[in-house]
Amino acid sequence: MKIARFSHDNRIAYGIIDEHEIVVLDGDPMYAGFETIEERVPLSEVTLLAPVIPRSKIVAVGKNYRDHVTEMGGADAVAPAEPLLFFKPNTSVIGPENPIVIPPITKRVSYEAELAIIIGSVAKNVPAADADKVIFGYTIANDVTARDLQESDGQWARAKGLDSFCPIGPIVETEFDPTGKRIISRLNGEVRQDGVLDDMIHDIPKIIEFVSAAFTLLPGDIILTGTPAGVGEMVPGDRVECEIEGLGILSNPVR
Amino acid sequence: MKIARFSHDNRIAYGIIDEHEIVVLDGDPMYAGFETIEERVPLSEVTLLAPVIPRSKIVAVGKNYRDHVTEMGGADAVAPAEPLLFFKPNTSVIGPENPIVIPPITKRVSYEAELAIIIGSVAKNVPAADADKVIFGYTIANDVTARDLQESDGQWARAKGLDSFCPIGPIVETEFDPTGKRIISRLNGEVRQDGVLDDMIHDIPKIIEFVSAAFTLLPGDIILTGTPAGVGEMVPGDRVECEIEGLGILSNPVR
Repeated sequence: MKIARFSHDNRIAYGIIDEHEIVVLDGDPMYAGFETIEERVPLSEVTLLAPVIPRSKIVAVGKNYRDHVTEMGGADAVAPAEPLLFFKPNTSVIGPENPIVIPPITKRVSYEAELAIIIGSVAKNVPAADADKVIFGYTIANDVTARDLQESDGQWARAKGLDSFCPIGPIVETEFDPTGKRIISRLNGEVRQDGVLDDMIHDIPKIIEFVSAAFTLLPGDIILTGTPAGVGEMVPGDRVECEIEGLGILSNPVR
Repeated sequence: MKIARFSHDNRIAYGIIDEHEIVVLDGDPMYAGFETIEERVPLSEVTLLAPVIPRSKIVAVGKNYRDHVTEMGGADAVAPAEPLLFFKPNTSVIGPENPIVIPPITKRVSYEAELAIIIGSVAKNVPAADADKVIFGYTIANDVTARDLQESDGQWARAKGLDSFCPIGPIVETEFDPTGKRIISRLNGEVRQDGVLDDMIHDIPKIIEFVSAAFTLLPGDIILTGTPAGVGEMVPGDRVECEIEGLGILSNPVR
């Protein structure tokens, strides 16, 4: 199922996408299940919102595609033996079509298309074999990064955590199988990243096991799984699209 | 006012400490104000809880006391010209007397006594001169750190963000003045850190200005302001106390 969070007629609701319509759900499906109410709304009449706002955290995995590790070069050109984790705050989350706003404290901002895992239950010390049981679904994320702050700070909190630096969406797919799926980003319509999810160094079950060994995951927490090669700078006026086969296209203007 | 969050008779409530009693408040004072209800509870009968659980983020400042920068040594022995920021997730928060649990993924865990700022309103781009206006109050935090993971990961998310690695409390003081106040930690009753808050490299107004230039702060967000010299290892069976003059003592066992 493709789940959307949307605004329509001055309310915010969740729904299941059924071709060109949304079947409205009776509450947040992560907590209320998939009961629908007797209402359908044309997809063309709604504004899609970030499909999830995490109550706790966004955990992200750095350097998780070998070709991206290589392109970053220097001392960074070594793939970590274990997933390298960092956080983005929930205040960085925006939805489809919301502008990525570049603040005055950075001069060099990059896009990074990533597969985002949406956690569906309280999860601690989950073995890789059980990873599927704690996943609610998947969406697309853009792990927007201020490269200058990333270099000058050393710690990535500011570089990765600025307001609007975590676009997610457009929907959550609860039945997604990442096997063989392409991940693409485009800047102003031109392909910049073009990889396959299978090229992750640490795969999804391993990431869930590793992350949940460190932190209790809560429903709505998001895990970003790293980005393939081809990252580059965006400037105000640009439009960036992140696409994953089966999950749609996440498109955002840059301001 | 000293504000406590506590459990008593199977409910969780907030209250104002009045000597040996708590005057119960009508809801979370951060949102509901300081209306009290007609009830007083003896302090000796309640369990104090973490006074705040942030809905968004804990932002922490690294290397913010010169003597601590020096003791960390090596390439780290340089105080950063600007506050060095990192995040701790809300799942790391525990309250007074809750155990700090050392998980199997780390072998070397340290205490770090810190002054914690509790944000009281939505705050973005706050000038230093207006910092007071967005502060709800202050409490004590222990920025528990897995030194081995801090070194091996480079990024501090795991080292600083493990479950139970952010004890806070025992209360929030809304009228605290940090000027001249001592900050102390004790391991099993022995003084280990003994500094004054005035020795911060970046002071509180500067920190609020810097952090709010990067991230929108939400009510309940916490900012940790760094730790003075004297950090060291804790092992299961230890008890660690963090004390700040005027804010009380935050005491936690280690498991």
